[in-house]
Amino acid sequence: MPTISKKGQLMPASPIRKLVPYAEEAVKKGKSIYYLNIGQPDIKTPEIALQAVKNSNIDIIAYSRSEGSELYRQKISKYYSKHNIDVTHNDIVVTTGGSEALLFAFGSIMDIDDEIIIPEPFYANYNGFSTASGVKVVPVISKIENNFALPPIEEFEKLITPKTKAILICNPGNPTGYLYSKEEIQKLAAIVKKHDLFLIADEVYREFAYDGNTHYSIMQETGLEDHAIMIDSVSKRYSMCGARVGCLVSKNKTLIQTVLKFAQARLSPPTLAQIASEAALETPQSYFDDVIEEYVERRNTLISELQKIDGVRVAKPKGAFYCIVELPVKNSDDFAQWILEYFDVNGETIMVAPAGGFYSTPGVGLNQIRIAYVLKKESLIKAVNILKEALKAYNN
Amino acid sequence: MPTISKKGQLMPASPIRKLVPYAEEAVKKGKSIYYLNIGQPDIKTPEIALQAVKNSNIDIIAYSRSEGSELYRQKISKYYSKHNIDVTHNDIVVTTGGSEALLFAFGSIMDIDDEIIIPEPFYANYNGFSTASGVKVVPVISKIENNFALPPIEEFEKLITPKTKAILICNPGNPTGYLYSKEEIQKLAAIVKKHDLFLIADEVYREFAYDGNTHYSIMQETGLEDHAIMIDSVSKRYSMCGARVGCLVSKNKTLIQTVLKFAQARLSPPTLAQIASEAALETPQSYFDDVIEEYVERRNTLISELQKIDGVRVAKPKGAFYCIVELPVKNSDDFAQWILEYFDVNGETIMVAPAGGFYSTPGVGLNQIRIAYVLKKESLIKAVNILKEALKAYNN
Repeated sequence: MPTISKKGQLMPASPIRKLVPYAEEAVKKGKSIYYLNIGQPDIKTPEIALQAVKNSNIDIIAYSRSEGSELYRQKISKYYSKHNIDVTHNDIVVTTGGSEALLFAFGSIMDIDDEIIIPEPFYANYNGFSTASGVKVVPVISKIENNFALPPIEEFEKLITPKTKAILICNPGNPTGYLYSKEEIQKLAAIVKKHDLFLIADEVYREFAYDGNTHYSIMQETGLEDHAIMIDSVSKRYSMCGARVGCLVSKNKTLIQTVLKFAQARLSPPTLAQIASEAALETPQSYFDDVIEEYVERRNTLISELQKIDGVRVAKPKGAFYCIVELPVKNSDDFAQWILEYFDVNGETIMVAPAGGFYSTPGVGLNQIRIAYVLKKESLIKAVNILKEALKAYNN
Repeated sequence: MPTISKKGQLMPASPIRKLVPYAEEAVKKGKSIYYLNIGQPDIKTPEIALQAVKNSNIDIIAYSRSEGSELYRQKISKYYSKHNIDVTHNDIVVTTGGSEALLFAFGSIMDIDDEIIIPEPFYANYNGFSTASGVKVVPVISKIENNFALPPIEEFEKLITPKTKAILICNPGNPTGYLYSKEEIQKLAAIVKKHDLFLIADEVYREFAYDGNTHYSIMQETGLEDHAIMIDSVSKRYSMCGARVGCLVSKNKTLIQTVLKFAQARLSPPTLAQIASEAALETPQSYFDDVIEEYVERRNTLISELQKIDGVRVAKPKGAFYCIVELPVKNSDDFAQWILEYFDVNGETIMVAPAGGFYSTPGVGLNQIRIAYVLKKESLIKAVNILKEALKAYNN
């Protein structure tokens, strides 16, 4: 029997997806499930994007340019200018989702055993991409009791070694919902300039900033041109997760030329989804206003319902649509699986993401879960009630 | 200035795409171009696939399962059974094009500095994927004078070291058009079993076998279950290169579980394109009959026109839609660029792929180009005439 690679053996199972077989079993038993595990919103894709695909008159689904069509990239740059980000189409490489943008960034700036510093907890798949790239994640720990604020700068500097190539943040943050302040971004900018590192910011939740807070992009920071790599995606903005269209943006020309070589090797991002994505840029502001209003209401509902449960702690997210919830359990992997296997309230149950996979420090976050508040308010209330009852039953 | 990775510096520019800027300049000067550089057929996508997307009533472009929907994979397995390949949906992971299937295969079976043996010349992007994966390509040389037949088995065995993890073939072959015989596949099967290696076969051109030859898949070979990894794609079969839907197929369950972890990290293959791909499986046989007839005629036209040029040598392809052409020039990179920059016949010029990038042995193939016969017969005749005149002018 030929052998699997070490890398393949080390690849983590996705905490978001690894319980899917248990969920399928539950469905087969006739249970219905509230899916809080994955950031798949129930919000409708803008009609303008769906119609563009239906009305397209292409008769060959052909390759696009490896970096995405010039017209689409020009339109993206106009979208950014509305967000006070000044880039041209030449600073943009269209990718197959934000996932591929991250893989291209990792490949372009890091070799095997290089290190990347990431505030923890972080988007679980950063672990997967790091393992696939042979790169070591060095976590800097942010805590639920501080609402997941950026740790002091000294904590970062302590971790920098000759192998450190980059700092990666997600802003607004998945899974914490944390929104970095302008001051925090500027502190990070100072560190990466001082130590000649890249600063990668995953800004796919840009629009999802609540309570009057505004998002400050690393691309707005002057003097950071050679260091800043922005990751973006249409997935969450337009509720088009399955489109698989994202982009990588940087003013560093050597970096963009390198990314382009990775892009050429895989030929092209998906053509049909680029048609939808280009049209989606015309989505009216009212769509976003409605969506943000909806998410704020969902967040408020979720947090207040969770706070009613004894022994549960939750930080209040300022953006995105996730929160980390600390539970009175020892092992949330076991708890989340147990719910799917054995627990329901009137035939209804819930699927959540155990939070251990959002940390790279072993043993941390084992009493936490991530909840994506991508369901309607009424569903969230029912789901939290199931969680409450499940905790009672599990702890007995 | 932060530094680019060694890997990024080593990534090869795509020989298929690196001349695109020169082509764009030529177009800006008002020239029209016959694109022989890229396997982007002018054949129409089956209407049934295009209509499926237009008629879809999804209102959220949502993630699919990471391994592709169960229904789509079941339908793929039925397609394979028609080709005497006996697999179930559990042996299939749907990927973002054949490109991603190759990346997942490389990641699942090879670590840095591991080696993969590939008959040369080979599909240029195998170089890119190997570099991105930190893997070393060990070429076994096939020659134009032997019509690119598989070298003797001893040539492979000489190259096997403790770091060798796999042999990779493309069948029918890009860029050679070579179709492996059942006997050749069986010889390869014997080697990989003897040395406990994987055998990866890129079979995306399965349907494109000419002159009464039939394709023999590595998946048809009994006893090879733990070793065989098949790469597939809808790109060429249905003229849907821009869909970016492919798959990886293997009976080795540990391998499939490992591939699935890579697939989960990037969440999902593109959803709209999976709708088109699922419908494309209903394409009637008459579509393929017409397409094959068309390609045979194009191949015959191209080969006979090329053979009329002094100093040009070409092997006769038995499958796919490429051929390697040896030219009376020293450096086809320079020649191909020169044509785009300085040569035309009545305002028309050609873009070809310099073949050096299809070899990993430095200095080999520099007097060769790859031609994709993806254009109509009349266009191919004109294009070869331009090549003939360009050779005269360039060599004076």
